Amino acid sequence: MTPPSHRREITGFSNPTVKFLRSLREKKHRKAAGKFLAEGLRLLTDARESGHVPETLVMAKGRDAHPLLDELEREVAARGGDIIETSPDILAKITGKSNPQAVAGAFAELDTSLAGLDRSSSPIWLVAQELRDPGNLGTMLRTGDAVGAGGLILIEDCADPFSVEAVRASMGAIFTQRVARARWEEFLPWLRSGAGQLVAASLRESVPYRDAPYAAPCFILVGNESQGLPEPYEAECDLRVTMPMKGRADSLNAAVAGAVLAYEVLERLDTSEE
Amino acid sequence: MTPPSHRREITGFSNPTVKFLRSLREKKHRKAAGKFLAEGLRLLTDARESGHVPETLVMAKGRDAHPLLDELEREVAARGGDIIETSPDILAKITGKSNPQAVAGAFAELDTSLAGLDRSSSPIWLVAQELRDPGNLGTMLRTGDAVGAGGLILIEDCADPFSVEAVRASMGAIFTQRVARARWEEFLPWLRSGAGQLVAASLRESVPYRDAPYAAPCFILVGNESQGLPEPYEAECDLRVTMPMKGRADSLNAAVAGAVLAYEVLERLDTSEE
Repeated sequence: MTPPSHRREITGFSNPTVKFLRSLREKKHRKAAGKFLAEGLRLLTDARESGHVPETLVMAKGRDAHPLLDELEREVAARGGDIIETSPDILAKITGKSNPQAVAGAFAELDTSLAGLDRSSSPIWLVAQELRDPGNLGTMLRTGDAVGAGGLILIEDCADPFSVEAVRASMGAIFTQRVARARWEEFLPWLRSGAGQLVAASLRESVPYRDAPYAAPCFILVGNESQGLPEPYEAECDLRVTMPMKGRADSLNAAVAGAVLAYEVLERLDTSEE
Repeated sequence: MTPPSHRREITGFSNPTVKFLRSLREKKHRKAAGKFLAEGLRLLTDARESGHVPETLVMAKGRDAHPLLDELEREVAARGGDIIETSPDILAKITGKSNPQAVAGAFAELDTSLAGLDRSSSPIWLVAQELRDPGNLGTMLRTGDAVGAGGLILIEDCADPFSVEAVRASMGAIFTQRVARARWEEFLPWLRSGAGQLVAASLRESVPYRDAPYAAPCFILVGNESQGLPEPYEAECDLRVTMPMKGRADSLNAAVAGAVLAYEVLERLDTSEE
């Protein structure tokens, strides 16, 4: 049963908890609090099934009952978390969406240390340098989940993986993929301290991406949306590959390029295991 | 030489031309005027090289000189277009970007009729049903350019391909890819009136996407970001394919799914021609 002490109703927009939760839409407040928001029963269920339970669960009054929501509520209560019921309007204010889903949660930020990654846990890793768009970042997490990647390593100044937009675009993969943040000067020695092939799409001294000699663990590196990958980063790669560009453009969207490469690597590594 | 009659300077925020150009950031005004905005020298050069010259060219005072900009200006003047010089602040107001590029243009909307498409002009076409995100839409155009697709067919209620965000995400492909808009009830008879294989990613009665029997012209259909493709749409497909999903999720971002499929189709069709 839910201990009643953890459960309360909030009716005012100016309630400090509402203000606090709402503040988590901004990076500086997320950073200060070490917490982030996720919304929607599906996302929160994905989180729970991946072992992540919100510290605070906010539910709209008048929501439809759902067995998965009951389960979530029980688990939050069992861990001593806060359970808040409030109006749909206040929930909309918290999530910043005019049509909010009936439930949202505040989670403790996840470990993003490079040292915490176990590279042997997966044959594919995604790496992004100065990826600025939170939608692209979330999409890369989602792709990583789909190809069975271990996680996404963010190099230099990337979008915040814990922003509402990135979390939403990840479709739950923020909870299943490891995320690490590192400077290039930290990443490279870490990469070179063990097995790992660094691969990037490039127009310089490259081989066709199809049937290239990928090797696990394969680290697929994509660059910034506007600038692409700086030349010294490309030079550091163990394998540079090109994708066909039949039109006027000479590049793909960063998340798309990463996905096309990741599926090719997945296919090649699967085949080479046979 | 530039006829001086077409060239003027605007210094006031409340100038009607500024208001008009700024209004093109909204769909209803684009629709009413039949015009859309594109910004940045690169985009405008892509447009010009694809035969699209803006009716109105807006340039920020104090911009760096550039031979491509001179060429653009000459061409706009030669076609009797408007050339406007204004302050960077006013340009920022028009484009809605705090750091606008030094130049923007207003173009006549392009033909989006299905009847205008020549399916034999390309072996690959992208089709999106209720694609709501303008970034995804622009990204699909960009991918279409890269794989040598003929264009993007938008089914039902999609994001506006002429929105500033879609144009920006297309990286110029809005000018190189054909865009058509149609209802499903219009699209299907059109498709079936000639050669064309309709393909979609699906979990039902499908074959692995790798090495599937793709045939040109191949129409790659992706569904809405949240709902995916409705079952009747899937049922209409000539080929249903699955991509590996190694993680918790059962789908990819729509633009990503379209791109992974498009590159596979490109490879297969190229191979089958050998």
